Amino acid sequence: MSEQNSQNYKAKSFAMNDDAALYQKSNCYPRRDAVDVLTEFLPKFRWKEGKKRIFDIGCADGSVTNIISAFCNNDYEVFEACDINERAVKYATEYYGTDKMIFRVMDIEGQLPKEMNGKFDNVFSFYTLQWIKNQEKAFQNIYDLMAKDGECLLTLLARIPVYSLFNALKDTDTWGYLLKYINQFISPYHDVSDPDVIIQSLLEKVGFQYVDVRCRQKKYEFKDIQQLRNILEAVSPFNVDKKLYEQFFDDIMEVAEDMRIIDRRTKTATFHYNLIVIHCRK
Amino acid sequence: MSEQNSQNYKAKSFAMNDDAALYQKSNCYPRRDAVDVLTEFLPKFRWKEGKKRIFDIGCADGSVTNIISAFCNNDYEVFEACDINERAVKYATEYYGTDKMIFRVMDIEGQLPKEMNGKFDNVFSFYTLQWIKNQEKAFQNIYDLMAKDGECLLTLLARIPVYSLFNALKDTDTWGYLLKYINQFISPYHDVSDPDVIIQSLLEKVGFQYVDVRCRQKKYEFKDIQQLRNILEAVSPFNVDKKLYEQFFDDIMEVAEDMRIIDRRTKTATFHYNLIVIHCRK
Repeated sequence: MSEQNSQNYKAKSFAMNDDAALYQKSNCYPRRDAVDVLTEFLPKFRWKEGKKRIFDIGCADGSVTNIISAFCNNDYEVFEACDINERAVKYATEYYGTDKMIFRVMDIEGQLPKEMNGKFDNVFSFYTLQWIKNQEKAFQNIYDLMAKDGECLLTLLARIPVYSLFNALKDTDTWGYLLKYINQFISPYHDVSDPDVIIQSLLEKVGFQYVDVRCRQKKYEFKDIQQLRNILEAVSPFNVDKKLYEQFFDDIMEVAEDMRIIDRRTKTATFHYNLIVIHCRK
Repeated sequence: MSEQNSQNYKAKSFAMNDDAALYQKSNCYPRRDAVDVLTEFLPKFRWKEGKKRIFDIGCADGSVTNIISAFCNNDYEVFEACDINERAVKYATEYYGTDKMIFRVMDIEGQLPKEMNGKFDNVFSFYTLQWIKNQEKAFQNIYDLMAKDGECLLTLLARIPVYSLFNALKDTDTWGYLLKYINQFISPYHDVSDPDVIIQSLLEKVGFQYVDVRCRQKKYEFKDIQQLRNILEAVSPFNVDKKLYEQFFDDIMEVAEDMRIIDRRTKTATFHYNLIVIHCRK
């Protein structure tokens, strides 16, 4: 591959595949984890009296935003949600948008619009913040979005086989060019000890009064091997040439067999991963 | 393999390889984690005034017991430590035994000697409790060992590649007979979601007043591939025929390459695992 082509890959901003429909079909364990975390942590919230203003960061197809809304009894003054991806925001608006539920394009790592400062009583972000390189900036923005006494509930991925699978092809002759900048895709907490301790310290630095960070060991058994392939295709940010697309994911699935994520004998697939769960009060 | 031979494997009690010298040479990450956990959690202890009585469960070769002793400034009325393995206790006594540091054979899952009831101000157990099938019984015994206001600090393994590696050979024609009862070897928390939540609930049931359970994502880079092999040999409870011993561990190391625990290119080896850390007050 020429240097110029390789630069194109670098230039591509690393964000999830923007096929929101594919993501909606396949985001099985993110959805399960959202329900589990909301069930466990919402009862610990000190809810504000009266109508709340709620914000969700990284809405993708909007399906998890919709779950959060249901857990809040669909009862709020306003529920805003954002994503960096325009197509996702369009999709989410179409499926879940109402006059009180508004989706917008926004980068949580960027400059916040001034009018959003201190606007929200509760901020949520599920399965998004592992994409952010400047973690402190994102946590600072979340803090700034929140009203006094506001509370947030965030989850993000630490170690997960998704990264190990793509990473395994990084040093191959066939796929090396495509995966050259894979580190921009991998969670900053995939390959470290004690991510919860690192994050706790960042959140305290940003100024949160109450900080509870947990690292949760998770297991997810896929319905079948195709479901595993679907989620890998949905989250892959790699711009594979159409002619090579099937070969690329065939090779990924072969690595999954090697790594015993797929059980060759029973034709089943299981993910073991670690999810960071954060509950903070301003 | 005949049913009779297979019964012999069943009959063998599942405990760590009892070569304490080999374990001493190779228990690299258990030793590192002991130091890290003691450094983080001992400052949170409400230490009893005056001389303390201390107990350590699962001393193995005694090297971690010795680390705990150093963190307690080697200042106590008595420091007792136990292991289920007679050879380990003999080895530890020889290396670390003094008139105030006493090693004894004892099963933390069994009936406690009456005179030990409420005897200890502080109980430690590092990298041991994952061997115990009846978790509640072990936690109850730890509670019973402790004096009023006593505190304990425990670590045990949740998910770790050690189990995945041996487990990968379970369904092979060559090693199936040997690994038939491998589930007795695998941590009850290796293959589950939210082990910290399960353990928290057990400890509260047993009666502890203060319970803090953390699941910690850990990474350990081995010095070289041989160091990985050493620790696998040291913890393996499988009774491999001498003639097949090298072949067995060659095959295990091949699985480690498949699973990308060993990097074929750089000839390095890394473990990613989850350690449960428990801090309780009676």
